[in-house]
Amino acid sequence: MAKPIDAYLDPVDFYFDFSSPYGYFAAAKIDEIAARHARTVNWRPILLGAVFKVTGQQPLPTIPLKGGYSKHDIERSARFFGVPLRVPSKFPIGSTAPCRAFYSIVDRDPQLAVRLAQALYTAYFAEDRDISTTEVTLDVAEKLGIPRNGLSHALNEPALKDRLRSEVDDAVVRGVFGSPYFIVDGEPFWGSDRLDQVERWMATGGW
Amino acid sequence: MAKPIDAYLDPVDFYFDFSSPYGYFAAAKIDEIAARHARTVNWRPILLGAVFKVTGQQPLPTIPLKGGYSKHDIERSARFFGVPLRVPSKFPIGSTAPCRAFYSIVDRDPQLAVRLAQALYTAYFAEDRDISTTEVTLDVAEKLGIPRNGLSHALNEPALKDRLRSEVDDAVVRGVFGSPYFIVDGEPFWGSDRLDQVERWMATGGW
Repeated sequence: MAKPIDAYLDPVDFYFDFSSPYGYFAAAKIDEIAARHARTVNWRPILLGAVFKVTGQQPLPTIPLKGGYSKHDIERSARFFGVPLRVPSKFPIGSTAPCRAFYSIVDRDPQLAVRLAQALYTAYFAEDRDISTTEVTLDVAEKLGIPRNGLSHALNEPALKDRLRSEVDDAVVRGVFGSPYFIVDGEPFWGSDRLDQVERWMATGGW
Repeated sequence: MAKPIDAYLDPVDFYFDFSSPYGYFAAAKIDEIAARHARTVNWRPILLGAVFKVTGQQPLPTIPLKGGYSKHDIERSARFFGVPLRVPSKFPIGSTAPCRAFYSIVDRDPQLAVRLAQALYTAYFAEDRDISTTEVTLDVAEKLGIPRNGLSHALNEPALKDRLRSEVDDAVVRGVFGSPYFIVDGEPFWGSDRLDQVERWMATGGW
Protein backbone atom coordinates (compact mmCIF):
# COMPACT_ATOMS: atom_id res chain seq x y z
CA MET A 1 0.00 0.00 0.00
CA ALA A 2 1.30 3.45 -0.87
CA LYS A 3 2.23 5.75 1.96
CA PRO A 4 0.20 8.94 2.27
CA ILE A 5 2.03 11.89 0.67
CA ASP A 6 2.85 13.59 3.99
CA ALA A 7 4.96 10.59 4.95
CA TYR A 8 7.48 11.85 2.38
CA LEU A 9 7.61 15.46 3.61
CA ASP A 10 9.59 16.55 6.64
CA PRO A 11 7.77 18.55 9.28
CA VAL A 12 8.33 22.28 9.49
CA ASP A 13 10.37 23.25 12.56
CA PHE A 14 8.69 26.11 14.41
CA TYR A 15 10.76 27.80 17.15
CA PHE A 16 9.10 30.35 19.41
CA ASP A 17 9.28 32.01 22.81
CA PHE A 18 6.11 32.14 24.90
CA SER A 19 6.81 35.81 25.59
CA SER A 20 6.98 36.71 21.87
CA PRO A 21 3.86 38.35 20.40
CA TYR A 22 4.99 37.61 16.85
CA GLY A 23 5.47 34.00 17.92
CA TYR A 24 1.87 34.08 19.15
CA PHE A 25 0.64 35.31 15.75
CA ALA A 26 2.65 32.61 13.98
CA ALA A 27 1.31 29.95 16.35
CA ALA A 28 -2.21 30.89 15.28
CA LYS A 29 -1.36 30.37 11.59
CA ILE A 30 1.45 27.87 11.04
CA ASP A 31 -0.46 24.58 11.43
CA GLU A 32 -3.07 25.68 8.89
CA ILE A 33 -0.44 26.92 6.42
CA ALA A 34 1.57 23.72 6.75
CA ALA A 35 -1.52 21.54 6.37
CA ARG A 36 -2.29 23.20 3.02
CA HIS A 37 0.99 21.70 1.81
CA ALA A 38 0.63 18.30 3.46
CA ARG A 39 3.09 19.16 6.21
CA THR A 40 3.04 18.77 9.94
CA VAL A 41 4.69 21.22 12.33
CA ASN A 42 7.35 20.42 14.88
CA TRP A 43 6.66 22.95 17.68
CA ARG A 44 9.76 23.93 19.65
CA PRO A 45 9.44 26.52 22.44
CA ILE A 46 12.74 28.11 23.45
CA LEU A 47 14.04 30.72 25.89
CA LEU A 48 14.94 33.76 23.83
CA GLY A 49 16.78 35.31 26.77
CA ALA A 50 19.35 32.52 26.57
CA VAL A 51 19.66 33.09 22.81
CA PHE A 52 20.07 36.87 23.25
CA LYS A 53 23.10 36.19 25.46
CA VAL A 54 24.77 34.79 22.35
CA THR A 55 23.62 37.48 19.91
CA GLY A 56 23.85 40.46 22.29
CA GLN A 57 20.37 41.62 21.35
CA GLN A 58 18.00 43.50 23.66
CA PRO A 59 14.27 42.85 24.05
CA LEU A 60 12.39 45.11 21.60
CA PRO A 61 10.55 47.28 24.17
CA THR A 62 13.86 48.55 25.58
CA ILE A 63 15.11 50.10 22.32
CA PRO A 64 14.44 53.87 21.91
CA LEU A 65 11.86 54.72 19.19
CA LYS A 66 11.69 51.07 18.13
CA GLY A 67 10.05 50.12 21.44
CA GLY A 68 7.13 52.53 21.01
CA TYR A 69 6.64 51.48 17.40
CA SER A 70 6.79 47.80 18.23
CA LYS A 71 3.92 48.07 20.74
CA HIS A 72 1.86 49.81 18.06
CA ASP A 73 2.88 47.29 15.41
CA ILE A 74 1.95 44.36 17.67
CA GLU A 75 -1.57 45.69 18.30
CA ARG A 76 -2.09 46.53 14.64
CA SER A 77 -0.69 43.19 13.45
CA ALA A 78 -3.01 41.29 15.81
CA ARG A 79 -5.97 42.97 14.11
CA PHE A 80 -4.36 42.40 10.69
CA PHE A 81 -4.00 38.66 11.41
CA GLY A 82 -7.43 38.49 13.08
CA VAL A 83 -5.95 37.18 16.33
CA PRO A 84 -7.33 38.32 19.73
CA LEU A 85 -4.87 40.39 21.77
CA ARG A 86 -4.98 42.02 25.18
CA VAL A 87 -1.59 43.62 25.72
CA PRO A 88 -0.07 41.83 28.74
CA SER A 89 0.47 44.07 31.76
CA LYS A 90 3.76 42.25 32.39
CA PHE A 91 6.01 42.07 29.33
CA PRO A 92 8.34 40.46 28.53
CA ILE A 93 8.18 37.51 30.92
CA GLY A 94 10.40 34.52 31.61
CA SER A 95 8.90 31.39 30.13
CA THR A 96 10.78 28.57 31.81
CA ALA A 97 7.66 27.05 33.39
CA PRO A 98 5.58 26.98 30.17
CA CYS A 99 8.56 25.57 28.21
CA ARG A 100 9.19 22.82 30.73
CA ALA A 101 5.49 21.94 30.82
CA PHE A 102 5.56 21.58 27.03
CA TYR A 103 8.63 19.32 26.98
CA SER A 104 7.24 17.17 29.81
CA ILE A 105 4.45 16.12 27.44
CA VAL A 106 5.68 16.38 23.87
CA ASP A 107 7.35 12.96 23.49
CA ARG A 108 4.36 11.11 24.91
CA ASP A 109 1.58 13.15 23.27
CA PRO A 110 2.76 15.75 20.73
CA GLN A 111 -0.78 16.87 19.87
CA LEU A 112 -1.59 17.56 23.50
CA ALA A 113 1.69 19.48 23.84
CA VAL A 114 0.69 21.70 20.91
CA ARG A 115 -2.75 22.28 22.42
CA LEU A 116 -1.03 23.22 25.68
CA ALA A 117 1.27 25.67 23.86
CA GLN A 118 -1.72 27.27 22.14
CA ALA A 119 -3.64 27.50 25.44
CA LEU A 120 -0.63 29.07 27.19
CA TYR A 121 -0.24 31.64 24.40
CA THR A 122 -3.95 32.49 24.59
CA ALA A 123 -3.78 32.81 28.39
CA TYR A 124 -0.87 35.24 28.12
CA PHE A 125 -1.70 37.31 25.04
CA ALA A 126 -5.50 37.24 24.96
CA GLU A 127 -6.34 37.01 28.68
CA ASP A 128 -3.39 38.82 30.28
CA ARG A 129 -2.59 35.94 32.62
CA ASP A 130 0.99 35.71 33.85
CA ILE A 131 2.07 32.32 32.52
CA SER A 132 5.60 32.86 33.87
CA THR A 133 4.30 31.57 37.22
CA THR A 134 4.11 27.84 37.85
CA GLU A 135 0.58 28.27 39.25
CA VAL A 136 -0.87 29.75 36.07
CA THR A 137 0.95 27.23 33.89
CA LEU A 138 -0.52 24.42 36.01
CA ASP A 139 -4.00 26.03 35.81
CA VAL A 140 -3.85 26.17 32.02
CA ALA A 141 -2.57 22.57 31.79
CA GLU A 142 -5.23 21.31 34.17
CA LYS A 143 -7.97 22.70 31.92
CA LEU A 144 -6.66 20.37 29.21
CA GLY A 145 -6.89 17.39 31.55
CA ILE A 146 -3.20 17.25 32.44
CA PRO A 147 -2.94 16.06 36.06
CA ARG A 148 -1.82 19.00 38.22
CA ASN A 149 0.24 17.06 40.77
CA GLY A 150 2.06 15.00 38.21
CA LEU A 151 3.03 18.06 36.18
CA SER A 152 3.97 20.01 39.28
CA HIS A 153 6.46 17.31 40.23
CA ALA A 154 7.74 16.92 36.68
CA LEU A 155 8.57 20.65 36.39
CA ASN A 156 11.31 20.27 39.00
CA GLU A 157 12.90 17.11 37.67
CA PRO A 158 16.55 17.53 36.65
CA ALA A 159 15.97 15.52 33.46
CA LEU A 160 13.31 18.01 32.31
CA LYS A 161 15.52 20.98 33.14
CA ASP A 162 18.30 19.37 31.11
CA ARG A 163 15.90 18.71 28.26
CA LEU A 164 14.94 22.40 28.00
CA ARG A 165 18.56 23.49 28.17
CA SER A 166 19.53 21.11 25.38
CA GLU A 167 16.58 22.22 23.23
CA VAL A 168 17.75 25.84 23.57
CA ASP A 169 21.36 24.88 22.86
CA ASP A 170 20.29 22.92 19.77
CA ALA A 171 18.30 25.90 18.54
CA VAL A 172 21.32 28.21 18.84
CA VAL A 173 23.48 25.66 17.02
CA ARG A 174 20.91 25.66 14.20
CA GLY A 175 21.15 29.46 13.99
CA VAL A 176 17.87 30.37 15.66
CA PHE A 177 18.14 33.95 16.98
CA GLY A 178 14.55 35.19 17.19
CA SER A 179 10.89 34.24 17.53
CA PRO A 180 9.15 32.99 15.51
CA TYR A 181 11.77 31.12 13.51
CA PHE A 182 10.95 28.44 10.94
CA ILE A 183 13.09 25.84 9.22
CA VAL A 184 11.59 24.24 6.10
CA ASP A 185 13.74 21.51 4.53
CA GLY A 186 16.83 23.20 5.94
CA GLU A 187 15.77 26.69 4.86
CA PRO A 188 15.54 29.22 7.74
CA PHE A 189 12.93 31.98 8.00
CA TRP A 190 12.67 34.53 10.79
CA GLY A 191 9.53 36.44 11.71
CA SER A 192 5.77 36.20 11.37
CA ASP A 193 6.20 38.53 8.38
CA ARG A 194 7.98 35.72 6.52
CA LEU A 195 4.93 33.41 6.63
CA ASP A 196 4.24 34.32 3.00
CA GLN A 197 7.72 33.15 2.03
CA VAL A 198 7.42 30.05 4.25
CA GLU A 199 4.23 29.13 2.43
CA ARG A 200 5.68 29.77 -1.03
CA TRP A 201 8.74 27.68 -0.10
CA MET A 202 6.51 24.74 0.83
CA ALA A 203 4.45 25.19 -2.32
CA THR A 204 7.36 25.47 -4.74
CA GLY A 205 10.29 23.76 -3.05
CA GLY A 206 12.28 26.99 -3.10
CA TRP A 207 13.37 29.68 -5.53
CA MET B 1 -14.59 71.26 -12.43
CA ALA B 2 -14.09 68.50 -9.85
CA LYS B 3 -10.58 67.82 -8.69
CA PRO B 4 -9.14 64.42 -9.53
CA ILE B 5 -9.45 62.04 -6.59
CA ASP B 6 -5.74 62.02 -5.80
CA ALA B 7 -5.92 65.72 -5.01
CA TYR B 8 -7.77 64.71 -1.83
CA LEU B 9 -5.31 62.05 -0.67
CA ASP B 10 -2.05 62.86 1.04
CA PRO B 11 1.09 61.32 -0.40
CA VAL B 12 2.69 58.36 1.34
CA ASP B 13 5.96 59.31 3.04
CA PHE B 14 8.69 56.82 2.14
CA TYR B 15 11.92 57.05 4.16
CA PHE B 16 14.91 54.98 3.11
CA ASP B 17 18.69 54.74 3.27
CA PHE B 18 20.59 54.15 0.01
CA SER B 19 22.61 51.46 1.79
CA SER B 20 19.50 49.50 2.85
CA PRO B 21 18.63 46.43 0.74
CA TYR B 22 15.10 46.31 2.14
CA GLY B 23 14.77 49.98 1.19
CA TYR B 24 15.84 48.97 -2.33
CA PHE B 25 13.09 46.32 -2.48
CA ALA B 26 10.52 48.82 -1.23
CA ALA B 27 11.70 51.42 -3.75
CA ALA B 28 10.94 48.93 -6.52
CA LYS B 29 7.34 48.45 -5.29
CA ILE B 30 5.99 51.49 -3.44
CA ASP B 31 5.07 53.75 -6.38
CA GLU B 32 3.05 50.99 -8.02
CA ILE B 33 1.29 50.06 -4.76
CA ALA B 34 0.47 53.70 -4.00
CA ALA B 35 -0.78 54.31 -7.54
CA ARG B 36 -3.29 51.46 -7.16
CA HIS B 37 -4.87 53.59 -4.42
CA ALA B 38 -4.61 56.95 -6.18
CA ARG B 39 -1.66 58.02 -4.03
CA THR B 40 1.65 59.59 -4.82
CA VAL B 41 4.82 58.89 -2.87
CA ASN B 42 6.99 61.42 -1.08
CA TRP B 43 10.48 59.89 -1.35
CA ARG B 44 12.78 60.86 1.54
CA PRO B 45 16.32 59.42 1.63
CA ILE B 46 17.94 59.62 5.07
CA LEU B 47 21.21 58.66 6.74
CA LEU B 48 20.45 55.67 8.93
CA GLY B 49 23.83 55.99 10.67
CA ALA B 50 22.66 59.29 12.17
CA VAL B 51 19.41 57.65 13.25
CA PHE B 52 21.24 54.69 14.82
CA LYS B 53 23.14 57.15 17.05
CA VAL B 54 19.77 57.94 18.65
CA THR B 55 18.48 54.37 18.88
CA GLY B 56 21.79 52.66 19.72
CA GLN B 57 21.25 50.05 17.00
CA GLN B 58 23.99 48.32 15.05
CA PRO B 59 24.01 47.62 11.32
CA LEU B 60 22.52 44.16 10.72
CA PRO B 61 25.66 42.46 9.31
CA THR B 62 27.53 43.06 12.58
CA ILE B 63 25.10 41.09 14.80
CA PRO B 64 26.10 37.45 15.51
CA LEU B 65 23.84 34.82 13.84
CA LYS B 66 21.48 37.57 12.64
CA GLY B 67 24.15 38.89 10.26
CA GLY B 68 24.56 35.59 8.43
CA TYR B 69 20.83 35.09 8.23
CA SER B 70 20.22 38.62 6.99
CA LYS B 71 22.55 38.15 4.01
CA HIS B 72 20.66 34.99 3.10
CA ASP B 73 17.29 36.67 3.64
CA ILE B 74 18.28 39.61 1.44
CA GLU B 75 19.24 37.36 -1.50
CA ARG B 76 16.14 35.20 -1.09
CA SER B 77 13.85 38.24 -0.71
CA ALA B 78 15.26 39.80 -3.88
CA ARG B 79 14.21 36.69 -5.79
CA PHE B 80 10.86 36.64 -3.93
CA PHE B 81 10.17 40.26 -4.95
CA GLY B 82 11.55 39.69 -8.46
CA VAL B 83 14.13 42.46 -8.08
CA PRO B 84 17.66 42.09 -9.54
CA LEU B 85 20.41 41.88 -6.89
CA ARG B 86 24.16 41.57 -7.02
CA VAL B 87 25.37 41.62 -3.42
CA PRO B 88 27.56 44.75 -3.10
CA SER B 89 31.21 44.01 -2.36
CA LYS B 90 31.23 47.03 -0.01
CA PHE B 91 28.40 46.98 2.51
CA PRO B 92 27.12 48.99 4.28
CA ILE B 93 28.23 52.29 2.74
CA GLY B 94 27.82 55.93 3.69
CA SER B 95 25.24 57.60 1.50
CA THR B 96 25.82 61.29 2.02
CA ALA B 97 26.63 61.98 -1.66
CA PRO B 98 23.53 60.20 -3.06
CA CYS B 99 21.29 61.85 -0.45
CA ARG B 100 22.63 65.32 -1.20
CA ALA B 101 22.27 64.74 -4.94
CA PHE B 102 18.63 63.79 -4.37
CA TYR B 103 17.84 66.88 -2.27
CA SER B 104 19.62 69.17 -4.74
CA ILE B 105 16.95 68.26 -7.28
CA VAL B 106 13.76 67.30 -5.45
CA ASP B 107 12.20 70.75 -5.00
CA ARG B 108 12.75 71.73 -8.63
CA ASP B 109 11.90 68.39 -10.25
CA PRO B 110 10.55 65.72 -7.86
CA GLN B 111 10.05 63.14 -10.62
CA LEU B 112 13.65 63.45 -11.76
CA ALA B 113 14.77 63.13 -8.14
CA VAL B 114 12.84 59.85 -7.83
CA ARG B 115 14.36 58.56 -11.08
CA LEU B 116 17.78 59.49 -9.71
CA ALA B 117 17.07 57.61 -6.46
CA GLN B 118 15.99 54.53 -8.42
CA ALA B 119 19.07 54.73 -10.66
CA LEU B 120 21.36 55.07 -7.64
CA TYR B 121 19.74 52.07 -5.96
CA THR B 122 20.12 50.02 -9.15
CA ALA B 123 23.76 51.06 -9.50
CA TYR B 124 24.51 49.95 -5.95
CA PHE B 125 22.40 46.82 -5.53
CA ALA B 126 22.18 45.46 -9.07
CA GLU B 127 25.53 46.58 -10.54
CA ASP B 128 27.78 46.64 -7.45
CA ARG B 129 28.90 50.21 -8.08
CA ASP B 130 30.06 52.14 -5.02
CA ILE B 131 27.60 55.04 -4.93
CA SER B 132 29.17 56.35 -1.70
CA THR B 133 31.74 58.09 -3.88
CA THR B 134 30.94 61.47 -5.40
CA GLU B 135 32.29 60.26 -8.75
CA VAL B 136 29.85 57.37 -9.09
CA THR B 137 26.93 59.51 -7.87
CA LEU B 138 27.83 62.10 -10.54
CA ASP B 139 28.13 59.35 -13.19
CA VAL B 140 24.66 58.02 -12.38
CA ALA B 141 23.17 61.52 -12.36
CA GLU B 142 24.83 62.43 -15.64
CA LYS B 143 23.17 59.44 -17.35
CA LEU B 144 19.82 61.06 -16.47
CA GLY B 145 20.87 64.34 -18.06
CA ILE B 146 21.77 66.12 -14.82
CA PRO B 147 24.71 68.45 -15.56
CA ARG B 148 27.83 67.07 -13.90
CA ASN B 149 29.54 70.34 -13.09
CA GLY B 150 26.45 71.95 -11.64
CA LEU B 151 25.73 68.98 -9.40
CA SER B 152 29.38 68.67 -8.39
CA HIS B 153 29.34 72.25 -7.13
CA ALA B 154 25.94 71.88 -5.48
CA LEU B 155 27.07 68.87 -3.43
CA ASN B 156 29.44 71.07 -1.44
CA GLU B 157 27.09 73.97 -0.80
CA PRO B 158 26.42 74.61 2.89
CA ALA B 159 22.69 75.07 2.22
CA LEU B 160 22.44 71.55 0.76
CA LYS B 161 24.39 70.07 3.68
CA ASP B 162 21.99 71.82 6.06
CA ARG B 163 19.04 70.54 4.07
CA LEU B 164 20.12 66.91 4.45
CA ARG B 165 20.81 67.37 8.16
CA SER B 166 17.37 68.85 8.71
CA GLU B 167 15.68 66.06 6.69
CA VAL B 168 17.37 63.47 8.93
CA ASP B 169 16.46 65.42 12.08
CA ASP B 170 12.84 65.70 10.94
CA ALA B 171 12.74 61.96 10.29
CA VAL B 172 13.99 61.17 13.81
CA VAL B 173 11.41 63.58 15.27
CA ARG B 174 8.71 61.69 13.35
CA GLY B 175 9.94 58.43 14.90
CA VAL B 176 11.71 56.96 11.86
CA PHE B 177 14.27 54.41 13.09
CA GLY B 178 14.81 52.07 10.14
CA SER B 179 14.68 51.64 6.38
CA PRO B 180 12.27 51.41 4.68
CA TYR B 181 9.81 53.33 6.81
CA PHE B 182 6.41 54.49 5.57
CA ILE B 183 3.90 56.97 6.98
CA VAL B 184 0.37 56.75 5.56
CA ASP B 185 -2.04 59.39 6.91
CA GLY B 186 -0.01 59.55 10.12
CA GLU B 187 0.26 55.76 10.47
CA PRO B 188 3.86 54.44 10.62
CA PHE B 189 5.05 51.16 9.08
CA TRP B 190 8.58 49.78 9.24
CA GLY B 191 10.04 47.29 6.80
CA SER B 192 9.52 45.98 3.29
CA ASP B 193 7.63 43.13 4.97
CA ARG B 194 4.92 45.61 5.99
CA LEU B 195 4.06 46.51 2.37
CA ASP B 196 1.00 44.25 2.64
CA GLN B 197 -0.22 46.24 5.63
CA VAL B 198 0.68 49.54 3.93
CA GLU B 199 -1.45 48.56 0.98
CA ARG B 200 -4.37 47.39 3.09
CA TRP B 201 -4.18 50.65 5.09
CA MET B 202 -4.49 52.68 1.88
CA ALA B 203 -7.31 50.47 0.63
CA THR B 204 -9.36 50.49 3.84
CA GLY B 205 -8.35 53.64 5.71
CA GLY B 206 -7.12 51.55 8.63
CA TRP B 207 -8.36 48.80 10.92
